[in-house]
Amino acid sequence: MIEQGLERGVLTLWLARPEARNALTAEMVDGLMAGLKAAADDAAVRVVVIRGRGGFLSAGADLKSMGAGGKDGVIKTNRRFGEMVEAAERFPKPLVVVAEGAALGGGFGLLCAADVAIAEAGCKFGMPEVTRGLIPAQIAPFVVARIGHTQTRRLALTGEMIDGAEAERLGLVHHVETGTEAVEARLATVLVQLRGAAPDAAFVTKALLAQMAVRVDAAMLDRAALLFTEAAMSAEGAEGMKAFAEKRKPGWAEEDA
Amino acid sequence: MIEQGLERGVLTLWLARPEARNALTAEMVDGLMAGLKAAADDAAVRVVVIRGRGGFLSAGADLKSMGAGGKDGVIKTNRRFGEMVEAAERFPKPLVVVAEGAALGGGFGLLCAADVAIAEAGCKFGMPEVTRGLIPAQIAPFVVARIGHTQTRRLALTGEMIDGAEAERLGLVHHVETGTEAVEARLATVLVQLRGAAPDAAFVTKALLAQMAVRVDAAMLDRAALLFTEAAMSAEGAEGMKAFAEKRKPGWAEEDA
Amino acid sequence: MIEQGLERGVLTLWLARPEARNALTAEMVDGLMAGLKAAADDAAVRVVVIRGRGGFLSAGADLKSMGAGGKDGVIKTNRRFGEMVEAAERFPKPLVVVAEGAALGGGFGLLCAADVAIAEAGCKFGMPEVTRGLIPAQIAPFVVARIGHTQTRRLALTGEMIDGAEAERLGLVHHVETGTEAVEARLATVLVQLRGAAPDAAFVTKALLAQMAVRVDAAMLDRAALLFTEAAMSAEGAEGMKAFAEKRKPGWAEEDA
Repeated sequence: MIEQGLERGVLTLWLARPEARNALTAEMVDGLMAGLKAAADDAAVRVVVIRGRGGFLSAGADLKSMGAGGKDGVIKTNRRFGEMVEAAERFPKPLVVVAEGAALGGGFGLLCAADVAIAEAGCKFGMPEVTRGLIPAQIAPFVVARIGHTQTRRLALTGEMIDGAEAERLGLVHHVETGTEAVEARLATVLVQLRGAAPDAAFVTKALLAQMAVRVDAAMLDRAALLFTEAAMSAEGAEGMKAFAEKRKPGWAEEDA
Repeated sequence: MIEQGLERGVLTLWLARPEARNALTAEMVDGLMAGLKAAADDAAVRVVVIRGRGGFLSAGADLKSMGAGGKDGVIKTNRRFGEMVEAAERFPKPLVVVAEGAALGGGFGLLCAADVAIAEAGCKFGMPEVTRGLIPAQIAPFVVARIGHTQTRRLALTGEMIDGAEAERLGLVHHVETGTEAVEARLATVLVQLRGAAPDAAFVTKALLAQMAVRVDAAMLDRAALLFTEAAMSAEGAEGMKAFAEKRKPGWAEEDA
Repeated sequence: MIEQGLERGVLTLWLARPEARNALTAEMVDGLMAGLKAAADDAAVRVVVIRGRGGFLSAGADLKSMGAGGKDGVIKTNRRFGEMVEAAERFPKPLVVVAEGAALGGGFGLLCAADVAIAEAGCKFGMPEVTRGLIPAQIAPFVVARIGHTQTRRLALTGEMIDGAEAERLGLVHHVETGTEAVEARLATVLVQLRGAAPDAAFVTKALLAQMAVRVDAAMLDRAALLFTEAAMSAEGAEGMKAFAEKRKPGWAEEDA
């Protein structure tokens, strides 16, 4: 469910499960990480683009596929999302992410690893976990590194969705364009810019900047995976996911809102 | 001079000294900290809102009330402001601050602790300390954490006041609205969002994010309180506070400006 | 090639090599550092302004003058740029930088040290190093501290130039004005503000804020100077600088772009 295409030194990794708005299954997470690893080692690849089929980046983790394996299975599957974002963050060549439709939860986290992020104006960005009784466990440190602690607190605690213009204002994305054509045109421009950089110089520059990045605290993400699992298995989590499936508000929310 | 109101799980703590534009006395600082402590322990409280009576958040520290107790008294009173902001920053449930009229000095610092900050467009934000011969001692690290080192330097060294639109652009506040009605409507919307979050999930999320926050350096704030006191007791500080009381420019400023 | 003027407590340090768009030679770097050192010790100086003659801040390092002295000479000359930006960053009195025309490479880095940065709207800001086979070695940590890791990655890896409005949006500069007259008017306003601050209070405030700044990692900048030199002496670097001199695209860039 990860499709690949290589053209003129640019490898595109497509999330290809549009019928589920590219909700990320464990298999897709593994596929994306394998694709990044191969691209890092392939001299023919100068730039990687991550985007989604069907006009969506990703609606986040596929909650149905996460339940398998009991408590230990949920912990492991959740923790893997942090590993995926970290792999994207540490990818040694220029990385572009194109956000259309929605970039939620894990999709939001993935976007935070882009060297250049392009958004369609109507794309919805957010961390809706708390509205479903869950927590944004694995992506939190990457979001904090991307948009700062202040904006992360607001988005994580309200579950509010923002659009492309606000995503640009917050520094989540670098470019916002209206409509598919403008997005493609911007992507083409960015790729010309990235191919205009000397390959070795770009590689060394990215490695140098990586030394100045916030270090990911693996032990904290291990604990966060446990906290996620406890939330998912709690009465709140059960009610949240049930309400979400039934397209109604959960019991703790305003009845009249 | 701190008034409280609880409605549908939302505790509002009102700074209630409008005749002095809610300039913070030592008593008010203590009252605010006591209110936050009680709210943290009270299961009936899901969200806290801090705001000011009379259309003002706060004009900052009440300088008259700070002079009591000699040098040791000033040090202690000043240091207490840092403790107040830290208590707000560490408050474990969602915290909203509404800024109307003015948010200066200590009021500016308090705002920096909000998970969601709402500003009226005409509200004035700033750190005018240096224009009075004083220094923004206790709030500085919270401002740096909120809006970054670059913007903090500008505002702290110029004493410049900014309005709601710029406060939003700098990430000091999340929402800016024109007029009282729009502010109330936005607050209502934010409270619906915050009550739409599962209570336990919001609590755990905030605790997780707190681990990623900049640590407050208590020893540095202890030294900062001493530096503040030395400034307040210097010739500059005396002239600055005298000029402020007399509504004239201090001796070091432009005669013709 | 550094000219100085002192007026009403404000020392202006002019980069004065307009025929080369104020490209910084080793001599100019030394002159600027000497000027800052003298100003720090001179009680008559309350504020320093750095700007460029001829309507340009600086096009960056003078690459021709950097080749002297072989590999060791390039390492030393490159490292000196980091020392210059660090000296500006640590300058103990308020520092204003005025950016007109272009602020590239080392000029971009210098701008990052300003307490108040004023840009003319049409000024071009960027780190074009990678488009010439080079790396933004010495300025990188100062740019990260100024505009964050995310925006730094984008600008460093694409070499994209941004204008004054975007520089303000990214927090690189504090004020953007259209045309020379408006820039001069803004500078005058900022200087009134800075002279309105009590001198000792401003000094103590800046020292306090300096304790909250990101520490510069000298060992990392030493390594970065070596990486720069290796890039400059590589086939990529040779082609990049040759193509730049010949005003053509380098071999690795799009032929049709």
